[in-house]
Amino acid sequence: MSSTALHVVGVGNAIVDVLAEADDAFLAAHSIPKGGMMLIDEAQARDIYGHMAPGVEVSGGSAANSVACIASLGGRAGFVGKVARDNLGDIFRHDLRALGVAFDTLPLDKGPGTARCLINVTPDAQRSMTTYLGSAGYVSPDDIDAAQIEAAAITFFEGYLFEQPVAREAFVKACRLAKAAGRMAALTLSDASCVDRQHEALVKFSGAHVDVLLANQREAETLFETDNLEEIIRRARALCPLTAVTMSEKGSILIPRDGDVVRVAAAVPTKLVDTTGAGDAYAAGLLYGLSLKLSLAKCGALGALAAAEVISHFGARPQASLKKLAVDAGILSGAGQP
Amino acid sequence: MSSTALHVVGVGNAIVDVLAEADDAFLAAHSIPKGGMMLIDEAQARDIYGHMAPGVEVSGGSAANSVACIASLGGRAGFVGKVARDNLGDIFRHDLRALGVAFDTLPLDKGPGTARCLINVTPDAQRSMTTYLGSAGYVSPDDIDAAQIEAAAITFFEGYLFEQPVAREAFVKACRLAKAAGRMAALTLSDASCVDRQHEALVKFSGAHVDVLLANQREAETLFETDNLEEIIRRARALCPLTAVTMSEKGSILIPRDGDVVRVAAAVPTKLVDTTGAGDAYAAGLLYGLSLKLSLAKCGALGALAAAEVISHFGARPQASLKKLAVDAGILSGAGQP
Repeated sequence: MSSTALHVVGVGNAIVDVLAEADDAFLAAHSIPKGGMMLIDEAQARDIYGHMAPGVEVSGGSAANSVACIASLGGRAGFVGKVARDNLGDIFRHDLRALGVAFDTLPLDKGPGTARCLINVTPDAQRSMTTYLGSAGYVSPDDIDAAQIEAAAITFFEGYLFEQPVAREAFVKACRLAKAAGRMAALTLSDASCVDRQHEALVKFSGAHVDVLLANQREAETLFETDNLEEIIRRARALCPLTAVTMSEKGSILIPRDGDVVRVAAAVPTKLVDTTGAGDAYAAGLLYGLSLKLSLAKCGALGALAAAEVISHFGARPQASLKKLAVDAGILSGAGQP
Repeated sequence: MSSTALHVVGVGNAIVDVLAEADDAFLAAHSIPKGGMMLIDEAQARDIYGHMAPGVEVSGGSAANSVACIASLGGRAGFVGKVARDNLGDIFRHDLRALGVAFDTLPLDKGPGTARCLINVTPDAQRSMTTYLGSAGYVSPDDIDAAQIEAAAITFFEGYLFEQPVAREAFVKACRLAKAAGRMAALTLSDASCVDRQHEALVKFSGAHVDVLLANQREAETLFETDNLEEIIRRARALCPLTAVTMSEKGSILIPRDGDVVRVAAAVPTKLVDTTGAGDAYAAGLLYGLSLKLSLAKCGALGALAAAEVISHFGARPQASLKKLAVDAGILSGAGQP
């Protein structure tokens, strides 16, 4: 790849997170599933926000968190996602660009405001997410820049966005461009209930287009319709060239279609504060490693390292330089590394 | 006072803070005075924000932080300040109302957006503030609700807003209403350079209208044009019925016109993390105590307690229940207290 082409382009929801403290009674009163992610409409968002405690606003979004981590690893990353022309859209754009991430998707001119994820944090440190998608769901094929995708080593899609029909068309367009240019397409499944709802379409899309499939254990069990690990491995190999299944503190397994399964230990965080963003960070390490053509073991270790940093503090984006951590850990070399 | 009248109404800047990490070179490159507060225009705000690191957004504003503390102390508080009709305005309003603070000032319909304070935090934990006032400076006499001011024990003004001519008219209107109703007016000086610029007008306003004057040591030295404490006490007594001077870890002194000076020890925080908002929290404790007609010693202790909580964590608004802390410390009684 050229020295200006991107390592990874992420396509996903452009979302600002609103974090506030809540108790279980609050979740029950608003029918918010604890620990899960539920899509809500604008009226529900107004109602829930209207009753929430004072909050803190910070940029989020799954694939956006991943590209933030890739930038922190020293990689060249881009993002495709739809904000509105409002303060939250400005904040989201600023926070990505400030990390050096290329983000040039035109904002939505008319229609809903920038997406927000209302995150209620209960005293047991669980985070219950309700997402008002707003403008984020309006990613369309027109937002896919052919030259950018053709030059990037990997284009990475966020499963949350797969439920939006027009965004799914954008995924397919980008996948075709990537394949024709000899590049890779990657997909994270995002959420087990999303996998459940879109099961047939996701299997078809993954089989046809996806080179690297990322899932946590529950998402993998839902997609492959079995909780037997050997069976998951067999079915993953039949579906995609490479599948990564993360299993929290038990580490992850990488399942290449042609080759042995690689087991990756979880990296131990300095302290465990907040697991939000662990999967996004793991995806970043894995994909950046793949874009550099590192061994699968190193790709997995890079994912584990990024995840360990992100869970050691509040917030889903890294606070330390992931590149420095990876160089110190001997996974990336120093100055020579892009 | 009636059981629904407010203890304290704050009149101040409606501001959302944007916090990000920076180094000294960044401050120098943008001519940002370290540790200070500088007003900037929209173009400067765009330029500085465009170069800042990824940020976190959280509601701020000096008097707004104070009324947030008063609500946490168990008091009934209101706020008068001007947001715009935008996302940041919604966030600011939500965060105050979620604390139970009455906030009904109409948003600005046309003109600049909601104010933001760009706070660059250097590795030495110093915070350098640049404030784009936006809609916040548009508080006008029309925003003063006579019935609210006449019923509230204390109306409290933020010195930062004193520089806006129309806002100053609003101050004067509110002071006259408060005085005619037998209520108190309080003013915090906010910033030594602001005191320096407005010296003559501030002395005149304080002498004519202010029952309770709050200042840190540097602001007091600037207003009274002396660094001799005995002289400050003498001049404070000549100017206002009660003056409070805060001196960081050396505590504070309360100077009544008629009566002995009361020295108040600083409360020791569980840990010292971030001094932002210490003065706002002190003002809250002092004014809430005065509204309850507690002794000066107890009013000062309540201020010190609130300040100690706020400096024990990041952010200028309390995270623990100040009422519980004050009851535990024996300063407020339990259930019987309003």
